[in-house]
Amino acid sequence: MRTPLLLLALALAAPLAASDDIGLDAQAIAAAAQLRDRALEGSEAFAFVEGLTTEVGPRLAGTEADARAVEWTKRRFEAMGFDRVYLEPVTFPVWLRHRESAEVLSPFPQKLVVTALGGSIGTGGAPLEAEVVEFATLDELKAAPAGSLAGKIAFISNRMVRFKDGRGYGPAVGARSNGAVEAARKGAVAVLIRSIGTSNDRFAHTGNMRYVPDVPRIPAGALSNPDADQLVRMLRAGQPVRLRLDISAETVGEYTSHNVIAEVTGRELPGEVVTIGGHLDSWDQGTGAIDDGAGVAITAVAGAMIGRLERAPRRTIRVIAYANEEQGLYGGKAYAEARAAAGEIGAHQLSAESDFGAGRVYALRAGVTPAAWPVIERIGQVLAPLGVATEQGVGGPGPDVGPIVAKGATWAQLAQDGTDYFDYHHTPNDTLDKIDPKALDQQVAAYAVLAYLAAETTVDFGTLPVATPAPAPAPAQDPAGKPAR
Amino acid sequence: MRTPLLLLALALAAPLAASDDIGLDAQAIAAAAQLRDRALEGSEAFAFVEGLTTEVGPRLAGTEADARAVEWTKRRFEAMGFDRVYLEPVTFPVWLRHRESAEVLSPFPQKLVVTALGGSIGTGGAPLEAEVVEFATLDELKAAPAGSLAGKIAFISNRMVRFKDGRGYGPAVGARSNGAVEAARKGAVAVLIRSIGTSNDRFAHTGNMRYVPDVPRIPAGALSNPDADQLVRMLRAGQPVRLRLDISAETVGEYTSHNVIAEVTGRELPGEVVTIGGHLDSWDQGTGAIDDGAGVAITAVAGAMIGRLERAPRRTIRVIAYANEEQGLYGGKAYAEARAAAGEIGAHQLSAESDFGAGRVYALRAGVTPAAWPVIERIGQVLAPLGVATEQGVGGPGPDVGPIVAKGATWAQLAQDGTDYFDYHHTPNDTLDKIDPKALDQQVAAYAVLAYLAAETTVDFGTLPVATPAPAPAPAQDPAGKPAR
Repeated sequence: MRTPLLLLALALAAPLAASDDIGLDAQAIAAAAQLRDRALEGSEAFAFVEGLTTEVGPRLAGTEADARAVEWTKRRFEAMGFDRVYLEPVTFPVWLRHRESAEVLSPFPQKLVVTALGGSIGTGGAPLEAEVVEFATLDELKAAPAGSLAGKIAFISNRMVRFKDGRGYGPAVGARSNGAVEAARKGAVAVLIRSIGTSNDRFAHTGNMRYVPDVPRIPAGALSNPDADQLVRMLRAGQPVRLRLDISAETVGEYTSHNVIAEVTGRELPGEVVTIGGHLDSWDQGTGAIDDGAGVAITAVAGAMIGRLERAPRRTIRVIAYANEEQGLYGGKAYAEARAAAGEIGAHQLSAESDFGAGRVYALRAGVTPAAWPVIERIGQVLAPLGVATEQGVGGPGPDVGPIVAKGATWAQLAQDGTDYFDYHHTPNDTLDKIDPKALDQQVAAYAVLAYLAAETTVDFGTLPVATPAPAPAPAQDPAGKPAR
Repeated sequence: MRTPLLLLALALAAPLAASDDIGLDAQAIAAAAQLRDRALEGSEAFAFVEGLTTEVGPRLAGTEADARAVEWTKRRFEAMGFDRVYLEPVTFPVWLRHRESAEVLSPFPQKLVVTALGGSIGTGGAPLEAEVVEFATLDELKAAPAGSLAGKIAFISNRMVRFKDGRGYGPAVGARSNGAVEAARKGAVAVLIRSIGTSNDRFAHTGNMRYVPDVPRIPAGALSNPDADQLVRMLRAGQPVRLRLDISAETVGEYTSHNVIAEVTGRELPGEVVTIGGHLDSWDQGTGAIDDGAGVAITAVAGAMIGRLERAPRRTIRVIAYANEEQGLYGGKAYAEARAAAGEIGAHQLSAESDFGAGRVYALRAGVTPAAWPVIERIGQVLAPLGVATEQGVGGPGPDVGPIVAKGATWAQLAQDGTDYFDYHHTPNDTLDKIDPKALDQQVAAYAVLAYLAAETTVDFGTLPVATPAPAPAPAQDPAGKPAR
């Protein structure tokens, strides 16, 4: 056991001795450790997400609740003592869910729990009745003969697998994103998928889907896992299974919401920014506690804690509550485009987002130039007492950070334990009670350390090759496990 | 350690040596042990409940699904090889749920998850809008000044506590049973309760409520636990909270369903019966897997296993799938009244019911004459390898057995682990996936042993004092945790 211990000691000692390489002095490291320990003692993060999810509740992009959420968050940021709070416009089409139901007509009449997928059209003002044809996977559906689903409902029954890092999401979510297009190509009148979720609770998971030009638009819904199981059992019984599906949903023009932004002004390099944040919008059925009230709360509270230090860090820390992530990363794209137009991509020193629930952080990952990697390792040492390991060559930016990373900005990721994330996200069950306040404090500690030291170091994190967002396979490692959009 | 082992050996040896006292020979004990072990190897119980919950699904008493459930069960019983399968009529009023929704109008607009309670009237064809007044308990509501709730919605926020034996249900359920009457007495226009359930999943628990003559009937609903928490937080914020409540539900005349009964004819005393069973109806929102498809499946399969023995037991074993337990024990009452009218109460040697979910059996309890108690203890010894302890002086009969016990019949109880029972029961989440097939086999083993030995013994279990159903405090020990009705 001697050799590993010795190596470990050397590894730990090296960065400490080489503070020139990391541009951080002992005072900065001590301040970061203090931020960490203070957050662990109890932060305002739970109170923040409690306020947002109670006083605003669900906040589907483009609804009146979206406007209330922006107003609530702006006021809250102002009350938290940031140096500057402002709004930036984000425009997108508005999708509204009105009504949805499904029932088996024969051979075993009963209701099923269904949700319309985000972006789906309705069934045309009246229920649709058709026979169901099951496909084990999206690929199996793609392989069906042309026209073979004329007048039928396609049902894709593949089940998402549970992993700590959410890597079961990528392989499963194609059925949600592309199921309607592929089913319509075969002539289907609607598509139903098994929820892209890991829970056996009887909630259907919503989430975004898409249409493409020149393929008919058909309604798309998801069944809860127990209802998908039920439908599979019925189909295996061998008789034709007929369903009635009733969806009322529509896309109704454009809306302009806002990214809500708060800053701690840098003391030496105010034009260089470290960004942290989460997305303010949520799906409509839960109160968006873990997706992503938690992310906004964690990063805002981490930022505010830094803002209350006697001495601000060298660079500016910018907390961004992104608008409409769920329906197409609109907030992240608008932010990146505005920065590109202003020539400010290079001013972004490091960008991170919390959008993977409220589980504890277990790894620090980053996409920076090799010269800046020692800084990441030094930050990782301050994070280590939180149970956070530094991992090189894996990971990727959060979904709203993706667009600016594609334009060359560097990123960091605080990977969270997402073991139960897909039990709740995009369902009515995404509510405050699913959050452990102590886990939230651990995340605040991690973001405070990361943001503070990234803003304090004199080292430049560099820029990345344009449009190469992640060094590792993106679908499996994407921290938010979001589909490419 | 020597003394306890010696005592244990003596305790085990004593009944074996005194087979005259228990009316069971070694052959009978061996046959019971074989039934037990065969069930543990894998029974048909899961396939039974899978078939019932898939092919019939939810089966609210008085609906077309009730008729399908009766027909399905009769056919299944016939296919299982019982000596006799027959129906007995059970008549009751029909309650139908059409629609239900709730939303906060101010100060924090958002929807809440609500379910109408069984038996509730609707809001009169249109939504009702009123301010909410919270009461921590039903007693606090009872103590409110007369007329103080005029035009208001009373909200009872007490939370059920989780216990293995479900004893948290009794103290909590009064809010559901009597909330509407007590709220109406103070002038309220509606009552909402926190769900009588232990889960933080966002399902509202339905269940029966009642009205009384001379008190206005007002609509009654239950909020899911997270929604009750949300409403409490809003009320604590200090501003008046206004709700819109929309319930459409009605009681629509009478319906005659059936108890479905299957028998293994006794070889010596066919007129003496041991009854086991569960209730066939369910609430409308789940598929009634744990409440109480499991109970019907367990007891039917246990009975059928006994029916397949080379030699039937001395007495008849009767499996009863009771009609409409949920809305007032109608099946149990009809059965008891028919037996009383025929002078057959004394012919009932021992009656047991499985209606507490699908958790493992951990205790045998009984209400029999002192002379018959040694038989119960001997049965307990055969059950001991299943992890079942014999407990004297506690417990009570299942809800549908209660009416015949009140007329003097003796009872046995196989107490089940109900730790998670109130997470699922009376919610949309009561579905097949919540059942562990191996736990179901353990229960089949326990019922097979109990029914077989009770039917085989020559000892008479006696009769009980009329209208004294249980020797121990009923609300805390009631195996089904059902409210008195």
